[in-house]
Amino acid sequence: MPFAGKGANVVDGVKDLVVKDSKDAKKKDSKPQPTENERLRAAMAGVMERKLFTIPSFKIYGGVAGFFDFGPPGCAVKQNITQLWRQHFILEENMLEVECPAVTPEPVLKASGHVDRFTDFMVTDVVTHDCHRADHLLKAALEAVQADKEQTPEKKEEVEGLLRRIDELDAQQLGAALTAYEVKAPETKNDISPPFNFNLMFRTSIGPKGDLTGFLRPETAQGIFVNFKDLLYYNGGKLPFAAAQIGQSYRNEISPRAGLLRVREFTQAEIEHFVDPDDKSHPKFSSVEDLEPLLYSKALQKDTSKQPEAMSLKEAVKQKIIANETLAYFIGRTYLFLVQVGINPKRLRFRQHLENEMAHYAEDCWDAEIDSTYGWVECVGLADRSAFDLRAHSEASKQPLQAYVAYDKPRDVEKLVAKINKQAIGKSFKKDGKPLLEALEGMKEELKGDKGPLACARDSLSREGRCKISAGGRDFEVTTEMLEIREELQKESGKRFTPSVIEPSFGIGRILYCMFEHTYATRDGSEEKTLFKFKPAVAPLKAAVFPLVQSKELDEVARRISTKLLRAGLANTVDTTGTTIGKRYARTDELGIPFAITVDRDTLDAGDKQGTVTVRERDSTSQVRVPEDDMAELLRRLCFEDMAWKDATSKYKAQDAPSE
Amino acid sequence: MPFAGKGANVVDGVKDLVVKDSKDAKKKDSKPQPTENERLRAAMAGVMERKLFTIPSFKIYGGVAGFFDFGPPGCAVKQNITQLWRQHFILEENMLEVECPAVTPEPVLKASGHVDRFTDFMVTDVVTHDCHRADHLLKAALEAVQADKEQTPEKKEEVEGLLRRIDELDAQQLGAALTAYEVKAPETKNDISPPFNFNLMFRTSIGPKGDLTGFLRPETAQGIFVNFKDLLYYNGGKLPFAAAQIGQSYRNEISPRAGLLRVREFTQAEIEHFVDPDDKSHPKFSSVEDLEPLLYSKALQKDTSKQPEAMSLKEAVKQKIIANETLAYFIGRTYLFLVQVGINPKRLRFRQHLENEMAHYAEDCWDAEIDSTYGWVECVGLADRSAFDLRAHSEASKQPLQAYVAYDKPRDVEKLVAKINKQAIGKSFKKDGKPLLEALEGMKEELKGDKGPLACARDSLSREGRCKISAGGRDFEVTTEMLEIREELQKESGKRFTPSVIEPSFGIGRILYCMFEHTYATRDGSEEKTLFKFKPAVAPLKAAVFPLVQSKELDEVARRISTKLLRAGLANTVDTTGTTIGKRYARTDELGIPFAITVDRDTLDAGDKQGTVTVRERDSTSQVRVPEDDMAELLRRLCFEDMAWKDATSKYKAQDAPSE
Repeated sequence: MPFAGKGANVVDGVKDLVVKDSKDAKKKDSKPQPTENERLRAAMAGVMERKLFTIPSFKIYGGVAGFFDFGPPGCAVKQNITQLWRQHFILEENMLEVECPAVTPEPVLKASGHVDRFTDFMVTDVVTHDCHRADHLLKAALEAVQADKEQTPEKKEEVEGLLRRIDELDAQQLGAALTAYEVKAPETKNDISPPFNFNLMFRTSIGPKGDLTGFLRPETAQGIFVNFKDLLYYNGGKLPFAAAQIGQSYRNEISPRAGLLRVREFTQAEIEHFVDPDDKSHPKFSSVEDLEPLLYSKALQKDTSKQPEAMSLKEAVKQKIIANETLAYFIGRTYLFLVQVGINPKRLRFRQHLENEMAHYAEDCWDAEIDSTYGWVECVGLADRSAFDLRAHSEASKQPLQAYVAYDKPRDVEKLVAKINKQAIGKSFKKDGKPLLEALEGMKEELKGDKGPLACARDSLSREGRCKISAGGRDFEVTTEMLEIREELQKESGKRFTPSVIEPSFGIGRILYCMFEHTYATRDGSEEKTLFKFKPAVAPLKAAVFPLVQSKELDEVARRISTKLLRAGLANTVDTTGTTIGKRYARTDELGIPFAITVDRDTLDAGDKQGTVTVRERDSTSQVRVPEDDMAELLRRLCFEDMAWKDATSKYKAQDAPSE
Repeated sequence: MPFAGKGANVVDGVKDLVVKDSKDAKKKDSKPQPTENERLRAAMAGVMERKLFTIPSFKIYGGVAGFFDFGPPGCAVKQNITQLWRQHFILEENMLEVECPAVTPEPVLKASGHVDRFTDFMVTDVVTHDCHRADHLLKAALEAVQADKEQTPEKKEEVEGLLRRIDELDAQQLGAALTAYEVKAPETKNDISPPFNFNLMFRTSIGPKGDLTGFLRPETAQGIFVNFKDLLYYNGGKLPFAAAQIGQSYRNEISPRAGLLRVREFTQAEIEHFVDPDDKSHPKFSSVEDLEPLLYSKALQKDTSKQPEAMSLKEAVKQKIIANETLAYFIGRTYLFLVQVGINPKRLRFRQHLENEMAHYAEDCWDAEIDSTYGWVECVGLADRSAFDLRAHSEASKQPLQAYVAYDKPRDVEKLVAKINKQAIGKSFKKDGKPLLEALEGMKEELKGDKGPLACARDSLSREGRCKISAGGRDFEVTTEMLEIREELQKESGKRFTPSVIEPSFGIGRILYCMFEHTYATRDGSEEKTLFKFKPAVAPLKAAVFPLVQSKELDEVARRISTKLLRAGLANTVDTTGTTIGKRYARTDELGIPFAITVDRDTLDAGDKQGTVTVRERDSTSQVRVPEDDMAELLRRLCFEDMAWKDATSKYKAQDAPSE
């Protein structure tokens, strides 16, 4: 997820987490009110903390803002989602997975632009020296004005305009706005400093000498870029190919808020799909072209009367709403993945970046945004970043990071070719001309239309009869006598070029959090009876096994079933506490365990139920009676092979809920 | 893997990576000579780099010592080993998995002792200021003396003694030895500085204010300890239970050597098994008691005529060679795990720590050491650390980190009980006595034999008639009149105590590297034909699918098989390059792919082979012909269910190697 790097403060889209879409808020009257959102969020947070899905890190030491642990069930759910991601993207797409260190030396992040531009504007409380994000304070102030009924329509319009442009403001503009709206430090109401840049990377020092600065990577993508050359070789030199990395990334947020959504250490899963810029078709596009995700294109966003629209990806590519097939393919795959892990497709949209959000080199960007109690949250960024990243690393490392594609048959190519008059150069510069000659040799030809140094020199030569060329630390003034630049038609059997990269970048923690919200529910209208309707493949445990009453014989069967399930890769728990079956069901519900298996006297007694146990499905609470020997296979199919519960109910006998 | 923290420079055992066991080297004449080791290592490194199992990190920028990337096959193998670990330990043992951040605030690592004592002795080159590990330089110098035939036997004995004690030397002793042996900086031969402590943690700063120091965790264990209270609650308050964490740890090594074995960022998998110190039995011990790993006990190590001995774990516990069942249980489980992932059991030993290697609080420690071309490498540490870690965090955080165990029936317990004479205290100290009274209330009783503050006070009272008690920032002199301490027999229904912890700590990267060495082989005596005999479950890909010749029809079948395998969770690759089948087999061998599936004309043509494909097994190179529809199930069983290849050869028809 490299950031745009367009200007001083334009970092990637994730920065502004909460797309508080005022337009949406106004229109969707059915949307829950903020207080309802807060209530829901607090109720879910209560369950999550009590059941240790998440724990504030270093809690016994008072915790540190922006850090969370995953406790046992949270850890399992996160693992499951990560494994599904690996299966869905890496395995099914034959991607090349890499694992690189988080500690990264400065030159890598200097080249990528993070050292200079991965910043947020910060202001400090002039009395307490507490730090705040400048844009957050301004936003809050502007929203207060917006909400004020006394304000004139003119004022409100001004405020709305400012809110729209808030990410584009430079330090001076931001400072001016903070002054104009008399923004003070929250809580203390003290004056604040003018805004200044704060780099969001954690800094450290590598080795004992202390002279090698390192940072904790702010994203996993750079590890892929620096390995491009080896990965291309591994792939037999062929394009397109994709590489992926799953790992921790770090951002030293100024003032982390929004709970699990803005944290300082988080798991990313990033893909870099390298492709010929002249051919961004995708061989498997047909497998997703009929999907109809909600698309919120630039055009729709600009028209305040419009909402995101469901549209087939085929149509979106055809109408050039999405720039190319490969980007659309990944939008489709991302849609499938998110729905597979439990995101409600009706609360998922793909929002296109507006021109002012994109870096100058980006061709097209879309964010998968998921509706939550915090508003629409950017969870996946999908960007066609052209050749920016590879070019940047190639320049900084002085290593060619290019690919070669052979044409089916040789092609005629128009080129600019430099004809160098060494004599004339020698006459003018004597032996000082050597670096100039070397530089000219290095730029002997380029593709017509490439706007490279030759095109530039030719423009200058034809306009002014001379051009400036830098070489060996000085500028040479080169005349038409010394250098002629001709157009030539050449036959070429292939081309060498810097590949474009299409980058889907997943924030695993954010997807996880939104999934929690989308699957959180209560039963029978009771706020006490909570459950998570996790997809079985995602659930922390696949089953809970209960002996109906406390009994050595029943315990033994329960443990035997548990072991069999475990061997089939089905994580489960045995609950022999002997509390009421209703309470034990409630416990499995709270953890989102999809199936509860109960062993009762009928399992042991001679009769038509001998050797069978009951299975209760969490969402429907309906039960069937299943032979013990079928359990592992049935559960495996229910959890991992898209077998529906109704198929199980039609195959096996229904069973009333057991009573003690 | 917390370190011992016994003295200034006693860190954990992993520190001294290469147990260059001179005793072993002398005795095992059959062991390859160093040059042979180096040759083997270089040959394997060549394959590993060429096939991108590992890549020096940031290679295009010249790399940084101590950092490695895993490329596609290395990443897959590492994932597979980690998943097997999760299945073997976390799932099968019902452990509580947690995931905590790597960035850790200072107080946590101050409490654990890392801030003060996680250090190595460093010396610097007085001219270049390059840094070196003091013990490494001394060791090299001593070994040179050892190898010198001119030296007297007395000198050699002195040197051997010093080598044995090298980890115990303090700064002064180490400095004296460096001076005595005239050790200079390697390469430059410049003088070196006296040794001084260098902390191995990467330091950073959390938040924008810069006032909160953080470190990258040097181990994953602390994340578990700080969550103990919540985890115990999650487990229903019951002991024993185990928690585990898999994640990155960081050590800013002074001068990383030994390739993949000593790196600055690495993956650990650590278990903390919390147990009642009075009951370290293990309910599942019987499942491992008959295993006979090579044990290298303290006694054997002290007798230079002895070698490690295979001994059943049952016997080892019975003879009190291993301190308790739980520690022995984990030694057994570790043995099973290592063998399962491909470690040669004959090159695996469990070495007990000598007294001078252990921290004062540790009850017993064993390292799983694996033989490699670098010597015996510590890959897993198994330690009974008593209650040290929980006590340290409890003290620092002021949070009780204790468990309660109810007795089956009430027990008589001998206690020391304080009888406080408030009047006498009031008389002596007036209202200043309040803090003293509070302090005494807080220490009202303790178990007899606990050597707590009451026992201490009683000693003092009976010896001198008074004792000193600190409270409210001052010392009070307390007399026998004010405080009487009696022994009482009380009935108790349970006990509250700080649990002991038994800690198995795995270095995943080291296990991985040793496994590479143990499975690396050449075919037909040709150094060109290399293969990795990975266990199928560990192999980066489970199968390669080949159309025998280039043909659209055969390609189609190959892709269909590939997709089916993928859906069954079997990672695979299709090779349609059409090079000779021999070359394609060689490619799969280099990557350690266990099965190659070839689609040929017979697959398509009517006849008895229609619908069948050949499967070649890597190690035996034998082949069978299998119906296409059986493939996924057969491979799943071969890879994940311990089905042996010979079972496949007896079930299906043998087939000659296909020829084009």
